[in-house]
Amino acid sequence: MGNDLFLRACLRQPTPRTPVWMMRQAGRYLPAYRELREKFDFLRLCKTPELASRVTLQPVETVGVDAAIIFSDILVLPEAMGMELVVDESGGGPRFPAPLRSAQDIARLIQPDPAVHLNFVMEALRITRRELNGSVPLIGFSGSPFTLAAYMVEGGRSASFRFIKEILYSCPSLAHALLGKLSTAVSAYLNAQIEAGAQAVQIFDTWGGVLTGDAFREFSLRYIGQAVGGIRARGAPIIVFCKDCGHSIDALAGTGCQVVGLDWTADIGRARKLVGDRVALQGNLDLAILYSAPGRIREEVKNILEKFGKGEGHIFNLGHGIHPDTPVEHAREFIRAVHEESVRYH
Amino acid sequence: MGNDLFLRACLRQPTPRTPVWMMRQAGRYLPAYRELREKFDFLRLCKTPELASRVTLQPVETVGVDAAIIFSDILVLPEAMGMELVVDESGGGPRFPAPLRSAQDIARLIQPDPAVHLNFVMEALRITRRELNGSVPLIGFSGSPFTLAAYMVEGGRSASFRFIKEILYSCPSLAHALLGKLSTAVSAYLNAQIEAGAQAVQIFDTWGGVLTGDAFREFSLRYIGQAVGGIRARGAPIIVFCKDCGHSIDALAGTGCQVVGLDWTADIGRARKLVGDRVALQGNLDLAILYSAPGRIREEVKNILEKFGKGEGHIFNLGHGIHPDTPVEHAREFIRAVHEESVRYH
Repeated sequence: MGNDLFLRACLRQPTPRTPVWMMRQAGRYLPAYRELREKFDFLRLCKTPELASRVTLQPVETVGVDAAIIFSDILVLPEAMGMELVVDESGGGPRFPAPLRSAQDIARLIQPDPAVHLNFVMEALRITRRELNGSVPLIGFSGSPFTLAAYMVEGGRSASFRFIKEILYSCPSLAHALLGKLSTAVSAYLNAQIEAGAQAVQIFDTWGGVLTGDAFREFSLRYIGQAVGGIRARGAPIIVFCKDCGHSIDALAGTGCQVVGLDWTADIGRARKLVGDRVALQGNLDLAILYSAPGRIREEVKNILEKFGKGEGHIFNLGHGIHPDTPVEHAREFIRAVHEESVRYH
Repeated sequence: MGNDLFLRACLRQPTPRTPVWMMRQAGRYLPAYRELREKFDFLRLCKTPELASRVTLQPVETVGVDAAIIFSDILVLPEAMGMELVVDESGGGPRFPAPLRSAQDIARLIQPDPAVHLNFVMEALRITRRELNGSVPLIGFSGSPFTLAAYMVEGGRSASFRFIKEILYSCPSLAHALLGKLSTAVSAYLNAQIEAGAQAVQIFDTWGGVLTGDAFREFSLRYIGQAVGGIRARGAPIIVFCKDCGHSIDALAGTGCQVVGLDWTADIGRARKLVGDRVALQGNLDLAILYSAPGRIREEVKNILEKFGKGEGHIFNLGHGIHPDTPVEHAREFIRAVHEESVRYH
């Protein structure tokens, strides 16, 4: 492999510099992506392996990241479980017009066979591995069981999370039935992705942070642990990223994953002291820094490198997915700054 | 005074039970409020002292809370500083059509005289104190300097906080100029509210939690401290509530306030250990529990009382403002449950 820094850092092995990639790096801030989106709608891109692969490769070529992450959407898994998924192209993102609201709705969900129902993802991974030809590693991903459940029950984004929380608080056994089904599906999906060529996988828990600490442990962390348990045997590094979960960094390090992803509100130096040599850490630039001038971006990169300190086990990333209106030249400067400034820490 | 439990709890003095009120308790979940809103628009309610006072009293009469909080909006202060404020009545909330984007915009802001420019708030406080006639204490409030700055620079709610963060990161001196002006204005505003009858005041930092820890300390915490410093001499208890700031509970306890408000993601037992006897704590029921059946609401109230434990210095509240679609009977059950279940902890 040409550049395996990312995989080595996941395992806390020595690297000459810190590897870096960006959540949502294949996306709207890239002119080449916007061009493709003028011809094809979002789900068409996700579901056409050649197109998904092209989009996946764009940031590797344009921005110089140290890893590719397959272009897809976390909601294709619930779709494969039997839910209708629509994307409002005028903005608003993907949604489920018939959200889960009853025990029957949940009972009807199937366990998809990823090789059949999600073959477009597997095929995109196979094509991309071929195209990358060992230049950088390829990452697969899934939503966490709780984050998927939140979308499936709310029907889309929510401010109050009224319906999913109503189930958690008032019918916990129903919540556990749904989350159990989802952790099985997430494991099978990620195993299939690894089989198809993903060299590491990331579990995104976008919404676990809206829960109380107790509810987070019972309804999110626990099922992340189950999903991780179901894929560990594959040996591919597993990254767990939970937004707004600074209260549980220690617990996340105990799920069996190799890497814990941090959002920008966490202090990566303090997090490192907390997790010790149990896991590597990924993160955690405030995305909003990428609106600033290149010199300011570099300064903040240095700040985070200094907080993490010398030694192995840091994968640089943003604290969440890159904003669509980020200037691409600023993203490039971010990657360049990490490449140049991190050498002295190794 | 008939019921001074709230004020006593702010000072960690003995009370026979835990007092309780709800953030945004005067609002849309109340049928009597919705009736008034059919006749008057939102800003009209805020700016007509008799109407604002009527709305303030509604939850005291209907739900049985242990404190009233004056009905108003944090954005009337920036309006008084010279910004045009509009409220889109079809939803979307208040916004500034001409947000602050330059040094000139910031230089143009005036220091309002609350007795003149915000007299409608002072008059509403005076009327409400008279109407309450000592039955329960009356709380005044303001946004924190950073939260006000975020609204003033973004123009309204934001997902990325692009513009305010651009100023923080790229022109910190400009940010400090704005925040300095705002902390002076916040102090003057709260002093005037105390003068007009507010017996305690709360500073709402709704958006400090979107910052990195370093930026939170530099741009939010510091100016909360300045604002608190400017009103302490009045002797009225000061509550500081920061959403998503679980990382800084200890620091918030050091700002000079008497009470730190917690959102529902914080563990109130752990927070109590952290702050010791420096401050009282306010919070922190997950608002979403109020969609559940009465028995479940009571169970969660008991859970939080148990976490806080025996002794003084707890003001029960929600972890954020009550959702407009909360059943009023559930809000009532919440208050009742706190009243009944808390006796054994005192």
